[in-house]
Amino acid sequence: MPLLVVGSIALDSVETPTEVRDNVLGGSAVYFSYAASYFSSVRLVGVVGEDWPSEHTELLKKRNIDTTGIQVIPGGETFRWRGKYEVNMNDRETLEVHLNVFEEFDPVLPEDYRLCEFLFLANGSPVVQMKVLDQLPGARLTVADTMDLWISTQHDELMKLLKRVDGLVLNDSEAKLLTDDENLVRAGHKVREMGPKFVVIKKGEHGAMFFSEHETYVMPAYPTPDVIDPTGAGDCFAGGMMGYLAECGNFEPKTLKEAMAYGTLAASFNVEDFSLERFKTIEREEIDHRMEEYRKMLSF
Amino acid sequence: MPLLVVGSIALDSVETPTEVRDNVLGGSAVYFSYAASYFSSVRLVGVVGEDWPSEHTELLKKRNIDTTGIQVIPGGETFRWRGKYEVNMNDRETLEVHLNVFEEFDPVLPEDYRLCEFLFLANGSPVVQMKVLDQLPGARLTVADTMDLWISTQHDELMKLLKRVDGLVLNDSEAKLLTDDENLVRAGHKVREMGPKFVVIKKGEHGAMFFSEHETYVMPAYPTPDVIDPTGAGDCFAGGMMGYLAECGNFEPKTLKEAMAYGTLAASFNVEDFSLERFKTIEREEIDHRMEEYRKMLSF
Repeated sequence: MPLLVVGSIALDSVETPTEVRDNVLGGSAVYFSYAASYFSSVRLVGVVGEDWPSEHTELLKKRNIDTTGIQVIPGGETFRWRGKYEVNMNDRETLEVHLNVFEEFDPVLPEDYRLCEFLFLANGSPVVQMKVLDQLPGARLTVADTMDLWISTQHDELMKLLKRVDGLVLNDSEAKLLTDDENLVRAGHKVREMGPKFVVIKKGEHGAMFFSEHETYVMPAYPTPDVIDPTGAGDCFAGGMMGYLAECGNFEPKTLKEAMAYGTLAASFNVEDFSLERFKTIEREEIDHRMEEYRKMLSF
Repeated sequence: MPLLVVGSIALDSVETPTEVRDNVLGGSAVYFSYAASYFSSVRLVGVVGEDWPSEHTELLKKRNIDTTGIQVIPGGETFRWRGKYEVNMNDRETLEVHLNVFEEFDPVLPEDYRLCEFLFLANGSPVVQMKVLDQLPGARLTVADTMDLWISTQHDELMKLLKRVDGLVLNDSEAKLLTDDENLVRAGHKVREMGPKFVVIKKGEHGAMFFSEHETYVMPAYPTPDVIDPTGAGDCFAGGMMGYLAECGNFEPKTLKEAMAYGTLAASFNVEDFSLERFKTIEREEIDHRMEEYRKMLSF
């Protein structure tokens, strides 16, 4: 099943306690696509400026990611983000954001993309996310990400979006903000009651939680000693998860749980180097090998 | 196998965002004993003052906890602690500590206690913990807890202790402090290299991690929406873990992993009410039922 993702494409500058990388390939839709590409064919919709290095597009194409949905704005500049991680590598400060061409992002899907049945709306304004939904009336599974900015500034629109998507992925602090509840188990179900059939709360180094009407479960993060750069881990989580669902072509409870595990592992590889560097070194086989380790870890 | 625990017995006053309880039964060794009593016979060594309500001793006896090791100091007052939880129910502030009779605690084990083969040294000064070890030369499994205070003020003594115990249980912030490493996977192994054969890092609502020479794994906390009072959760974790090991009479990797799961579940019950209130309502059967749920949650 082809999987469609709509979201940001960026050039990131990342500062960690030991290293700095400037203008490396990033953006929610990029991280998502790359992680998902290990499982299914991916169609990527996003926008870049004239400064976008074509080698980045080539890299994505090499993994069979369909990049015809990447719109290049003449004279425009690509979305840029600069962030700095604390010593704990979990908390970070955003130093600079230049939305540039992403500010006016108004995704119009290529005709053949509109038949995709699996859709991921990477973090973006709920208004834009709903415009995408309008173009995919036949989607079988629609999942969105969101962030604190939209929870605070576009609350009503976000509430409308939540009534239209099957799943929502968000991080722990966002779930608490959205529900005004500090207990994540309660918060997860409260978000679910706002509309989506299932909710995934990402907890960074502590893993992720899943909530549906009849299920509540937690999956710990894969314990890696090599956390070099956590940027994009949440998007890779979503990419691994959605990619696996698209590969299976269903979203039964059993498949969703396996998908949560693949998301966990995709994130675990991503944090082991900057940008997509770690992913560039692996094939599906490495992910499946780590899956065996992960299954062993959780069985007793 | 009888299990021996040496540690604090206290009267706690606990403030949560919604409720206050004054002078309720608490203390590391008490929480530990109660949780462990579901799995094995327990011998408790601690000290109280003349103000100690005899009904507390009766409660422990009802669960077949041997309380002959509780020393009552004439004219003394029992250790008292007052703490206040933040809205997130994970962070807390200590408002008052009155060590009272615990300050001079110099445990002398009853003769028949010295044959115990399973020993847990609840949080206390490493000097006192080593004095207990001296009295149990035949112990087969010795596990200690510690805290930031001892890491900072009795570092050398703690290092000596670590060379003498089989296992150490500590929380995440303590592991980071002890190793000066923010990555818990690395921190866990660094603590292990200080002496113990295995190390358990407790992460509160995020579960616990296990480290031995050949194993590294994480177990998530059991997701409960009813967190009323987390006081003693770490001690109940250790109690469930050690109780199960004593019940099995071995500490093979397989048994240790099951013990980690039982510890997780013991902690999950404890947080569902103040003091030992939740435990008072359950039998072993409820723990085993939750274990089935937990296994199901972690299998996919």
